[in-house]
Amino acid sequence: MTDYSVTDLNARLTHMAELAKAARAITLPLYADDMDVINKADGDDYDPVTNADIEGERTMRTLITAVFPHDSIEGEELPDITGQNDWLWTLDPIDGTRGFVAGIPVWSTLIAVSYKGQPVLGLIDVAAQDKQFWGAPDKAWLLQGGVETELKTRDCGGDIRNAILGCTEPLAMLKPDELSAYNTIRRKARFSRLGLDAYGYGQVAAGRMDVIIESLLKPCDVRALMPVIEGAGGKVTNWEGGSAVDGGRVVAVGDAALLPEIYRDLQQAADV
Amino acid sequence: MTDYSVTDLNARLTHMAELAKAARAITLPLYADDMDVINKADGDDYDPVTNADIEGERTMRTLITAVFPHDSIEGEELPDITGQNDWLWTLDPIDGTRGFVAGIPVWSTLIAVSYKGQPVLGLIDVAAQDKQFWGAPDKAWLLQGGVETELKTRDCGGDIRNAILGCTEPLAMLKPDELSAYNTIRRKARFSRLGLDAYGYGQVAAGRMDVIIESLLKPCDVRALMPVIEGAGGKVTNWEGGSAVDGGRVVAVGDAALLPEIYRDLQQAADV
Repeated sequence: MTDYSVTDLNARLTHMAELAKAARAITLPLYADDMDVINKADGDDYDPVTNADIEGERTMRTLITAVFPHDSIEGEELPDITGQNDWLWTLDPIDGTRGFVAGIPVWSTLIAVSYKGQPVLGLIDVAAQDKQFWGAPDKAWLLQGGVETELKTRDCGGDIRNAILGCTEPLAMLKPDELSAYNTIRRKARFSRLGLDAYGYGQVAAGRMDVIIESLLKPCDVRALMPVIEGAGGKVTNWEGGSAVDGGRVVAVGDAALLPEIYRDLQQAADV
Repeated sequence: MTDYSVTDLNARLTHMAELAKAARAITLPLYADDMDVINKADGDDYDPVTNADIEGERTMRTLITAVFPHDSIEGEELPDITGQNDWLWTLDPIDGTRGFVAGIPVWSTLIAVSYKGQPVLGLIDVAAQDKQFWGAPDKAWLLQGGVETELKTRDCGGDIRNAILGCTEPLAMLKPDELSAYNTIRRKARFSRLGLDAYGYGQVAAGRMDVIIESLLKPCDVRALMPVIEGAGGKVTNWEGGSAVDGGRVVAVGDAALLPEIYRDLQQAADV
């Protein structure tokens, strides 16, 4: 799995920053201008945001293909491109579209690079806060206002009572049995904080939160998060303890010693 | 109720900006520095944040007393001061302490001025986003980066299906019967967005969200929000349609035509 060349990896890491910059040029003006533009969309019509999402993905794909024409590309908005090597880009121009629409600065652009199916590079670009959470094999860092700081998850002493728990929308995301399992953990945790999308995973990497429990994630929601949290010392799995790479029901922790108790509680849900 | 002098009102409005500035000087460095300072507090110990909260309130009280020595003052952290006139200041230096601790830029400083028990001036100062939501009789405005824009709530055509709903933490805030009433409304709404504390009310005033339904609010959580939302064209009441001034179970809407259906659905909860 890790037989990639470091030069090939670094070339893609450098290029990710270009992609994020191009995405910001599309997303940030719409977000800043949002009171006028977004409100013109009636009712269920999210057109300006959906358009920015598609345009952002198209722009990033063009940039990838120009430099790495043999890489595969998948994204939230457009059909998959199957390449001719072991590298795969996974893109989500606006993760947290609902937060974007409601004017909450936690939405982000997600960019993951996988090698032979395993995410090895990840970027959570929280443009509205000018915060980039980066992950690479064995390290993760925050880039904010031009300053780079190491990301390191927090030690909870393996005790869920020390943990800050997050979930974007438990009532909409979780079925009744899943919600009941989630509530068991929530009641033991220090407190819970909702509505964060990928930003919550960034805060786990930063040692500001400790556990995220979610469901219904798509591959493009989760792949960028894995190198960030794992590079910072945490762990991302599905609820059964297997790989999170395909999304679905996902748990992320800063302190892996929390996992046995979390898995036990999550077994209250069906099919875990 | 509205027999105050406009000069007296404006003097307090001007002074509110000084209070917010003083509070920012205490809160923002701690928030920016948070990775180091806050993480040094173990487990349940929120000391640095609690200290900033108390210090912020003490500083604001000193500023009030220096200029308006006969006004009453109440706050989240310190005992009430009973004054000798009809003006009352209500202070919450850090609304959304949990968001502050978790590093989410939606916490705010809340400042309300009431006359004869009725909030007439309100400020939601979202320091980490440099956004101030201001409310005064018959008007509300956003001050961001030195630029003032009018706040105006959004018309939903009286249809909850057009509405973006918010609640800070439904699972922790609402009892089972209340949660069930909330869920009835959530399922009809366009979508829900959680974890926002007072910032969600600001977004209702800005026409970016439409309904907030919460419970267990303290007077200092709600009084600053009322002039902002009402000055922007919305309405804040308790779940029974009465005054929200004492907190408790609160509903805020941008479009008052949504209220009859919301009250009907909330009647599923006991004692409504």
